[in-house]
Amino acid sequence: MKELIVLKIGGSLITKKSEQKPSLNIKNIKRISAEIKNGFNPEKNSLVLIHGAGSYGHPIVKRTGIHKGIKTKEQLVDFAETQRLQNVLNSLVCKELIKKKLPAVPCQPSSSAVMKNGKLDSLDLKAIKGMLEINLIPVLYGVPAYDSAQKCSILSGDEIISYLAKNLNASRIIHATDVSGVYDSDPKKNKNAALIKKFTKNNLSALSSSSNTDVTGGMMKKVSEIIELGIETEIISGLEKGNIEKALKGQKGMGTAVNFNRSGV
Amino acid sequence: MKELIVLKIGGSLITKKSEQKPSLNIKNIKRISAEIKNGFNPEKNSLVLIHGAGSYGHPIVKRTGIHKGIKTKEQLVDFAETQRLQNVLNSLVCKELIKKKLPAVPCQPSSSAVMKNGKLDSLDLKAIKGMLEINLIPVLYGVPAYDSAQKCSILSGDEIISYLAKNLNASRIIHATDVSGVYDSDPKKNKNAALIKKFTKNNLSALSSSSNTDVTGGMMKKVSEIIELGIETEIISGLEKGNIEKALKGQKGMGTAVNFNRSGV
Repeated sequence: MKELIVLKIGGSLITKKSEQKPSLNIKNIKRISAEIKNGFNPEKNSLVLIHGAGSYGHPIVKRTGIHKGIKTKEQLVDFAETQRLQNVLNSLVCKELIKKKLPAVPCQPSSSAVMKNGKLDSLDLKAIKGMLEINLIPVLYGVPAYDSAQKCSILSGDEIISYLAKNLNASRIIHATDVSGVYDSDPKKNKNAALIKKFTKNNLSALSSSSNTDVTGGMMKKVSEIIELGIETEIISGLEKGNIEKALKGQKGMGTAVNFNRSGV
Repeated sequence: MKELIVLKIGGSLITKKSEQKPSLNIKNIKRISAEIKNGFNPEKNSLVLIHGAGSYGHPIVKRTGIHKGIKTKEQLVDFAETQRLQNVLNSLVCKELIKKKLPAVPCQPSSSAVMKNGKLDSLDLKAIKGMLEINLIPVLYGVPAYDSAQKCSILSGDEIISYLAKNLNASRIIHATDVSGVYDSDPKKNKNAALIKKFTKNNLSALSSSSNTDVTGGMMKKVSEIIELGIETEIISGLEKGNIEKALKGQKGMGTAVNFNRSGV
């Protein structure tokens, strides 16, 4: 099989994330679709896309609390509506990819995903493997999913990445986000925050133990997970035009690289 | 677990089937959603819904030929677009069900389905079983799916019914179609065509061997499959107001009953 690239497109890129109602960023979706068309070489690589939920997911989840489990009948309806909204978003994303003649096939993870206490327990990959073999581009996304312990929890795009990358033996992961990568302190609070160009196990522990550094919680968790996964990963800004295309073509250095040259520091 | 009802809603009910472009029959969807809300008793039963594709599926499949397998790169894009259209239709159907406060959760079968030479080989049911246990109503639908022999084939709503009914041990199947049931000859060609109220293995073979009878090919195949499945099944007209509601409540005799009182003829 060709070398597999897993590309995550953050929900903050494809939706207007701060809106309380589902709100699309169609301009970004169109641009990113064109970048994928230009950057992806189907002769050389296979590609899985995963996108986030942004304003199609976070407000309704926060409002209904379904991520903490289902306690009422009303929350079952909220579960259904949250899933429906994710499929609507996915259809809109795939529509633009398909317009660019990319065989981007919607792939709802929760049809087979089983969670346990908020963690992914199993996801059937037979069909997804088959799709990749015949050169389709499966497009997965964060979803509410059945949880055997608490009835419902959220299967995040990041968790899907880890599961797929591990079980499909991905050679490279690209995280397109709304920041340029990982900083040594919060760039919104600290003017002198510096982008960390390369991340290894060694500088992660140095950062965690230093009281001067303040890698934000979410990003720290993401980086820890990536390091544990051990697959070459780049965290880049998908807001900056051309980055996704360049990354797909194999260009390095646009953001933070993790697990590259793992022997060195 | 509660007794499981599998309800199939034909594509000819929820779409304008003769249209060449995807065209919704929103009036029917709203009415059928209300009937399901009124007829389904979640204290007594579990419910799986399966809907057909109608004008969201048949024209594009016929035009692109993807049901016969994938031969070109363009057909991969057609595969993706066909899947996308089914998700769009499903989102619209679920929207109306959810408006009625039914926990109708979209469930894309092709995320895990693997076909082989046009027949369903495997479909992961762990998540669907879990959804039923917590009282969700999974809503599945006919889709293009990965085929290990010919790359793509169509997983029809009818095939999903058989698979689910068998593997989830359903107690009853309701087929809501655009005809009143099975006739002893084509009612469009023969004024004297009579509705067969009850079907068993015996009158199926009588009909097949008689040169006077002309049960249409599709319906004959459907009935043969139902008889083989051995689960109590009713084929009713979903165009006639109230039928779906009555059938869900357990009322009999609106159309053709198959596998009821199997010992008698």
